Formats: sequence, C-alpha cells, structure tokens
Amino acid sequence: MSDVGTGPVRLEVIALDGIPEVRPGDDLADLVGDALERTPGALPLRHDDVLVVTQKVVSKAEGAFVDLTAIEPRPEAIAFAARWGRDARQVEVVLRQAVRVVRMANGVVIVETRHGFILANGGVDASNVGSSSGSIVLLLPDDPDASARRIRDAVGRRFGTTPGVVVSDSLGRPWRLGITDLAIGVAGFRPLEDLRGTADADGRPMSATIRAVADEIASAAELVLGKTARRPAALVRGASPPPGDGSVAVDVLMPPELDLFR
Amino acid sequence: MSDVGTGPVRLEVIALDGIPEVRPGDDLADLVGDALERTPGALPLRHDDVLVVTQKVVSKAEGAFVDLTAIEPRPEAIAFAARWGRDARQVEVVLRQAVRVVRMANGVVIVETRHGFILANGGVDASNVGSSSGSIVLLLPDDPDASARRIRDAVGRRFGTTPGVVVSDSLGRPWRLGITDLAIGVAGFRPLEDLRGTADADGRPMSATIRAVADEIASAAELVLGKTARRPAALVRGASPPPGDGSVAVDVLMPPELDLFR
Repeated sequence: MSDVGTGPVRLEVIALDGIPEVRPGDDLADLVGDALERTPGALPLRHDDVLVVTQKVVSKAEGAFVDLTAIEPRPEAIAFAARWGRDARQVEVVLRQAVRVVRMANGVVIVETRHGFILANGGVDASNVGSSSGSIVLLLPDDPDASARRIRDAVGRRFGTTPGVVVSDSLGRPWRLGITDLAIGVAGFRPLEDLRGTADADGRPMSATIRAVADEIASAAELVLGKTARRPAALVRGASPPPGDGSVAVDVLMPPELDLFR
Repeated sequence: MSDVGTGPVRLEVIALDGIPEVRPGDDLADLVGDALERTPGALPLRHDDVLVVTQKVVSKAEGAFVDLTAIEPRPEAIAFAARWGRDARQVEVVLRQAVRVVRMANGVVIVETRHGFILANGGVDASNVGSSSGSIVLLLPDDPDASARRIRDAVGRRFGTTPGVVVSDSLGRPWRLGITDLAIGVAGFRPLEDLRGTADADGRPMSATIRAVADEIASAAELVLGKTARRPAALVRGASPPPGDGSVAVDVLMPPELDLFR
C-alpha cells in the first residue's frame, strides 16, 4: 500500500513582527506587508503560504466600532444585563448583530449573525479595542471573506506571490471549555478538503472525512498569537491548503438542514 | 504599554517518520521513540515540546477493536441503520459507547461517551483500522489521559527530557462543516490557559479568555498528519503550553450546568 498523503511533513508558524496599533482607515495589507519584510524568514512568500490575520485588527482597520454611550438598550437587554451583571448597552449591541438568538442563558447570549456565524456575544468584543474606558466595542468585519480577499490581493501585488489569507476569530464551542481560533474569512484556497472517496491506508474509501483546513490553520496561528493583541498576524508555511478558492460563509457554515444544534 | 505576552513567536510541527502499522500489544511509546530518533531535527527533545499521537494508533496499540460479526444489534439500531443506509452492527456498537444519546438524526448518532466526550458515532471508527473487509471497528482508548501519561513517562525515561503529550481525535462540530483534531487526552501540561485577570494590551482585565491550548496543538498537528493514517504522530515545538499538569476529562469537558447544547 502506498502512502496516499501528499501533504507536508513539516509546518511552520511565524508571528509577524512589529504591526503597530491599528486604527480606522489604516491600510492593513500595507501594515502586514511591512511586517512581512521585517520578520526574519518570512520572505520570499510561497504560493501555498497562508497569512492569518486576527479579526480584531481587520475590524479596527475597517472602523467597525460602536460607542456604547450612544446606545439605548431595549428592556430585554436591560433585564438580562441586570440579572447577569453585564452592561445593558453591550447586550443591546449583541442583539442588534443577531438575525436569530440561539441561546440566552447563564449570562451568555449566543446569536446567529447576519453573516451566518453562530457565536457568543455576536462577535462583539470589548477587550483590546484600544479604549481604556470600556465604552467602545468592536464588531465583526462586514464581510470577512472580502476582507481576506483584499489583503490577499494587495499582498500579492506587492510581493509578486499571492498567499492564502485567513481572517481568524476566537470562538467558544459547546461541550468544551476554552476558546479556539477558527476562520471567519478566507481567500485563495479551499477552506475544506474533502477526502471522501479517497482510499484510506487499507484501500477502503474514507467515508466521512472533510478536513476543516482553514480552521486548523487559524488554531495553529493562535498558538503564536494568542497571548496578546500585540501580535495580530502570522504566516503559516507548510500546511499545503487545498488549491482553488473558497469562502467561509459559503463553504464552511453548515446548512440549517444538516445542523442538529440550532 | 508593554507586551503582556510571554508566548513563542515561532511554532514548528514535525511529522514523525516511519511509524509502522500499529498492532495490539505494540509498545506505542517505543515506536514513537524510534520515530523521534529517525526524524531529522526532532531530537534533542525540549521540556516544552508536545508529542501529538492520534487516537487511532493509541486505540490499536491498546487493542480496542470490536469484531462486528459478533455483534447483535438491538431493534432501534436495525431500524436506524435501515433508514439511513448504515451497518446496524456498527450503530449497535455506537449505542453501547453511550451513557446518553444526544442526537440521533440525519444518519448521525451523537452520543455522550462514558469518558464524557460528546461526539458523532461515539468515536467508533471504521476507516484505516487495518481491516479490508470492514468488519472490524476501533473504539476510543479506555482512558486517553492515562494513555497520554504512559507515552509521556516512557518517552521521558528514554530521552531524559519529558515532553507534553496529546492524544488527538478528529471531531465534527455544530454549525460548521468539516472536522478538526482536538485533544481527547493530555499529559504534562495544562490543556487550558486561563488569561482571565491578565491585563490586555489596553490595561483592562481580559474577562473571558481561556485558551484551549491542547485542542489547538492537536489541530496544528493535524495539518501535517491529516491526509493519511501513515503519519500518526507529530512533534509540536514552540507552543509554550501552560506548565503544570492536567487532564482533558477533568479540565476541558464542560460541566453540564454550563452546557447550553446538551
């Protein structure tokens, strides 16, 4: 039996050096490009490299801030916030991200956003947003796949080699404590690799193996980025992401009819 | 503001070379140790290295096989299998892993195992188990934390440096297509890193950040291991896992009272 794998045997994740505090209107692709030039070993880029950029800096560059002092919470938000010791204006902003409230209990509001993501607090983020008063929160990017695409195109123009790009975010999950980083946007490769129909090492078809490559790349990047907002981007080299193109929104989010946990 | 991070800026994942087909009774730690010696750059081990070994080879070494020809399916398994085109004996084995059936729909049986894992098919695995007839399936290890501990202790004795160990498995998840590898067993480091109370880059306490480091290490390893069962172990270097000790079963699995998706 031959080895059916064509993947890498070695993966490297390199945190990019020296990305400054990102502000609304900043050209994030420029900042990432400068950081690539500054980071030993990052250049030259390879076609199957993947740049991982955290949601936080993408949202900041896109100006996705909300000033809580201008928010009037609805009665439901006020009641929930009072019960669980939260900021009612923040709960209001979370509810405004929702096309559907999935769970609202234990002080946690889990919503489906208009992007189709199901996540705690609708992706609304109050830490590391550059506001010491705590009155500014940060929303998800408007279209994270498009954000990834813009970074990819600009980095490709600058360096002559076009890497894949992932926009990552830290998500909780059912059944397990802790957060892992997953892909909320992707450009330049297929986020899932479907091995169904590929023969396994016994020669039998592998029936249910769809690798969530983009999510695993985001998690690998978090291992070097996760402790501080001061490192918002990493280069993942050697993951051999599935060639082609794709989108988290279209390819990864589960169609409602397959979802047993709505 | 100073950088509060103390983590790595570079991570390397190295697939271990030349682990042969694993059989019941094999000393897996021996095979992993031999592979470490064979893999360029793997040695010398460092104290904060993490060895990731896939569930499949752990279960094989521990002989966790079930021969389906000896299984009498209950009526519920026969009915479900007939409706969804599955093997009733396999459904029966899945139900025998369950202390609780979480969902049984769309051809998928999601159960809570006696370990406390909630997963599709109870972790029962029919691919790459070394059976071309398909009549042998593989169960989860009896105690994956203990399996990790045994590998850790033996590798530590052999090389004089004791790495962390993760036993990984490929799990689906709600809301997203595809599988990612997560930790089902861990030894030699804390699988979660609790940053609550740590100041973020703005000096504000980070309120809800518990990094699921062991799971992310498993996902990073899958990127080099995932395409074939021929590569069942990897070395993850540079993740700086939280020092101490811990257990997936005790530390990571969510207490029922916090779980909104039972």
